Amino acid sequence: MSQLFVRTLRDDPADAEVPSHRLLVRAGYVRRAAPGIYTWLPLGLRVLRNVEAIIREEMDAIGAQELSFPALLPREPYEASNRWTTYGNGIFRLHDRKGGDYLLGPTHEEMFTLAVKDMYSSYKDLPVWLYQIQTKYRDEARPRAGVLRGREFIMKDSYSFDTTDEGLDASYAAHRAAYVRTFDRLGFDYAIVKATSGAMGGSRSEEFLAKADVGEDTYVRCTHCDYAANVEAVAVRAPAASGYDDAPAAHAEETPETPTIATLVDHLNEKFPREDRPWAAGDTLKNVLVVLKHPDGTREPLAIGLPGDRDVDQKRLEGQLEPIEVEAMDDVELRKHPALVKGYIGPEVLGEESASGIRYVVDPRVVDGTRWVTGANLPGSHVLDLVAGRDFTADGTIEAADVRDGDACPNCEEGTLESARGIEMGHIFQLGRWFAEALDLKVLDESGKLVTVTMGSYGIGVTRAVAAIAEGNHDEHGLCWPRAIAPAAVHVVAAGKDPAVFAAAERLATELAGAGLDVIYDDRAGKVSPGVKFKDAELIGVPTLVTVGRGLADGVIEVKDRHTGEREEVAVDDAAAHLVGVVRG
Amino acid sequence: MSQLFVRTLRDDPADAEVPSHRLLVRAGYVRRAAPGIYTWLPLGLRVLRNVEAIIREEMDAIGAQELSFPALLPREPYEASNRWTTYGNGIFRLHDRKGGDYLLGPTHEEMFTLAVKDMYSSYKDLPVWLYQIQTKYRDEARPRAGVLRGREFIMKDSYSFDTTDEGLDASYAAHRAAYVRTFDRLGFDYAIVKATSGAMGGSRSEEFLAKADVGEDTYVRCTHCDYAANVEAVAVRAPAASGYDDAPAAHAEETPETPTIATLVDHLNEKFPREDRPWAAGDTLKNVLVVLKHPDGTREPLAIGLPGDRDVDQKRLEGQLEPIEVEAMDDVELRKHPALVKGYIGPEVLGEESASGIRYVVDPRVVDGTRWVTGANLPGSHVLDLVAGRDFTADGTIEAADVRDGDACPNCEEGTLESARGIEMGHIFQLGRWFAEALDLKVLDESGKLVTVTMGSYGIGVTRAVAAIAEGNHDEHGLCWPRAIAPAAVHVVAAGKDPAVFAAAERLATELAGAGLDVIYDDRAGKVSPGVKFKDAELIGVPTLVTVGRGLADGVIEVKDRHTGEREEVAVDDAAAHLVGVVRG
Repeated sequence: MSQLFVRTLRDDPADAEVPSHRLLVRAGYVRRAAPGIYTWLPLGLRVLRNVEAIIREEMDAIGAQELSFPALLPREPYEASNRWTTYGNGIFRLHDRKGGDYLLGPTHEEMFTLAVKDMYSSYKDLPVWLYQIQTKYRDEARPRAGVLRGREFIMKDSYSFDTTDEGLDASYAAHRAAYVRTFDRLGFDYAIVKATSGAMGGSRSEEFLAKADVGEDTYVRCTHCDYAANVEAVAVRAPAASGYDDAPAAHAEETPETPTIATLVDHLNEKFPREDRPWAAGDTLKNVLVVLKHPDGTREPLAIGLPGDRDVDQKRLEGQLEPIEVEAMDDVELRKHPALVKGYIGPEVLGEESASGIRYVVDPRVVDGTRWVTGANLPGSHVLDLVAGRDFTADGTIEAADVRDGDACPNCEEGTLESARGIEMGHIFQLGRWFAEALDLKVLDESGKLVTVTMGSYGIGVTRAVAAIAEGNHDEHGLCWPRAIAPAAVHVVAAGKDPAVFAAAERLATELAGAGLDVIYDDRAGKVSPGVKFKDAELIGVPTLVTVGRGLADGVIEVKDRHTGEREEVAVDDAAAHLVGVVRG
Repeated sequence: MSQLFVRTLRDDPADAEVPSHRLLVRAGYVRRAAPGIYTWLPLGLRVLRNVEAIIREEMDAIGAQELSFPALLPREPYEASNRWTTYGNGIFRLHDRKGGDYLLGPTHEEMFTLAVKDMYSSYKDLPVWLYQIQTKYRDEARPRAGVLRGREFIMKDSYSFDTTDEGLDASYAAHRAAYVRTFDRLGFDYAIVKATSGAMGGSRSEEFLAKADVGEDTYVRCTHCDYAANVEAVAVRAPAASGYDDAPAAHAEETPETPTIATLVDHLNEKFPREDRPWAAGDTLKNVLVVLKHPDGTREPLAIGLPGDRDVDQKRLEGQLEPIEVEAMDDVELRKHPALVKGYIGPEVLGEESASGIRYVVDPRVVDGTRWVTGANLPGSHVLDLVAGRDFTADGTIEAADVRDGDACPNCEEGTLESARGIEMGHIFQLGRWFAEALDLKVLDESGKLVTVTMGSYGIGVTRAVAAIAEGNHDEHGLCWPRAIAPAAVHVVAAGKDPAVFAAAERLATELAGAGLDVIYDDRAGKVSPGVKFKDAELIGVPTLVTVGRGLADGVIEVKDRHTGEREEVAVDDAAAHLVGVVRG
């Protein structure tokens, strides 16, 4: 510790919002170089390398092959896939001295695809699984939480290449199993949830989320079955379409001063009471106007119809539309569409064929035969008994409504959903043939015919994993690393001023190092008190803490488990052997 | 081999000028992604990691501590050191989405300096030696020779921090010793030569050059003593200043049609013959006009006076002036200075105090008391017996004259210089206090006084090392890797169609892998002939090649040493044990 390039901080850094960020900075693992850009100090780098090693072992174990693409990439491959445009300002772009366009790779689908195209030409060459552990760049609008969401970060990204869908299924299954083993070894408490596949489509898609209150992802799980999904990926179970023969004709009614759902429901219950049950927000159809911002800069209005008891969930909506961004339509824009009466917009003026010409998509619950109260397109008027499929037809459906605790499970009849938060640590999904089509990756099949290759995509956030593990492994005193990735196995503290203490502590540290253990030895003399040393040791969070101090006179040292807090005294002569046993389990 | 992500190429890539580039591409180690930007395929990455591991071990062994700075760096630290400006267009610059200025780090002096400033405050904390193995970026005007001079490349860069000059000397010596061990282990034939220190000054500076005809660096060594230096760093031994009491007054003479040194010398020997010896080019003083291009864009004329038998060596000149670039002064620019008469320029009109106002620097051989024939600043006229120190004084001296085989050694009386070419693999130098001053890195000394820290800088080109080792270890058939960094220890070829051959080869490969050796097993069946397999094996260059083929019927396999070409037959039953012995030495 007298030589280790580390300085612990007593105070939390001003910009740290989450425990992992606070502790990784305070304990001297990382330092901020710029927003979302971090230096890995010696302790941090050790943990990072341990995480990388576990990931590498599990990837190698399934037969994936490691290579390494550049981070500085030319524009051309990303032009071919159109992502040079669709990335928008989420990536770093630059010119070289000759004016050529480059980007800092945020992800390398194009490069992997082109590498296989360069090297392989036959179905006999496939499947092939390739991966890299490499630095990536994204110009995040809001880098946050230290290395949890940075702008320069390390990812393990793999891709599988197969000729058939069955092959892709097998590649996917192998990676999924490797991920389970990886995250188990890394010491995560995680959930595997259904996820969206992003802009490139694809079929199966699952995320590995580290359970954490500070996570940016919300997922839901069923109280009854094993369903679990990122809220972005929850597919609402639509009721079966019902007939509407018995429904009265739609009728517009004056509903003065009912600009909100709540005021409307009150008005309905007062003026148009129902016999079977009172009106509720879920009986109304709310039409929300938004503007889609396409990556090429064009703007497009969109109307979303959903039950009045639901709100639009921006993340769910954008998850469906990626890479399009969405913003609310403001009054200035609304006034450009004279058919729209603010607060009283109804389906009659919505849809591509309608007066407004605005595309109209509805929540899956708005199935044919459902009856709604909704805007009559006149100030202060609503229409009742408006039946979907009879009185209006939308241009499509969309999963934009918020998902709530207690919602019915989409997968079983009995369960309801409950939500939790997590940090996305891994994402595996079946990318399919999108990139292979775009970049013309074809191989000859058994009959000598050219077939397009199908791909799987498998990512792990490596730097993020360090933060996520810290998030799940700390207490009020500091970090408590799982043994597999800790920066050292044992942290030996020489407590006291007696030279015999230092001599014994150093001898022990040397013995442990000789036995192949990574040891931090706090040899600091002079003004550094035992209290400061203990505090630093707890902050740094090595799994086994050893104190050589007062007990030495009685021939014992103290061994403390950083996780459980359990302490035991061990004879100093047996200490090394004992500790090797503790570490090796 | 049937599964390894590699495809060997029969033909040399069109853009490959040097053997290492040709072979690394043909053998499937690297692929070009953009000019000077390469993908490391599985075989290449294994070699790269082996090189990294050796460097890391030797750095760790001397107590240097590894950390990792970002590659994407904010402008501010580089503004403080003024390098944001002085780098010119040799670096990649970019903006983030908020318009902030960033660069891709070409070197990290500022970051190391600031890290120590952030963490340390006392002389007790020093010395500290920090290093990283990290990706760097330089926007080279002419990236060349594959990964030998790339635009994205990996470097190991270390810095030492000391309070005293003696401390720096000790840090320097430790790193020098570590470099010797590192390069020895990597299998280099290298020279350690004196070098320039670049723009930042500093005192001791040495380069480790891999001896190679394709090297960009020319160095000289003495035929007698142990002097060796990069030509950029050769300091000409100036003759002692002599008196000039016996010299006649300078006299201008008509020398019509003598625009070149050769015509002038002929003219002198014809019209002004000397008794003791004939006139030679070395008796004339040539004044060369150049333009300095400063990083901030300004241009400045400079006159360089040197013996007429010497030429200006652009690299030596720029080595002295870095980061300034130099170009010849063209006629348009020359005409802007009416005092200059092309072809007949003499010292009278040169110098900051002269009619032209152009700064005038001379070769160290132009010492006081030396006599020269030089331009008389009149068309067709030269001046004879012009004595330095009497008739003219320069504004300073400069090492710009070319160095030639046979030149006197600057270090001893007996030897002469001979030149060779090399690839710069490592550079160690005493950086001194330049960055610490610029970034205000001070610590308290023993007396409680703030002192500026002194730094050493120690770099190794890691990706370049792979190419340089390939450059020094190949033959007409392909690569011949030193064992320490080879992508595998043994390459087993199953030669023939007999299933027994494949069975025996696979059993051997499995046994070797079980013994902890890295093995490439060429299991390719079908149309891949034994000849193709042998060719690929020689091209890939693993040190030990094993053929399981025809001899199997007699119970033997063939073991071939890739370097020496020696072959021996080994009983198949003893093969694994024998090979483990060969590999482990």
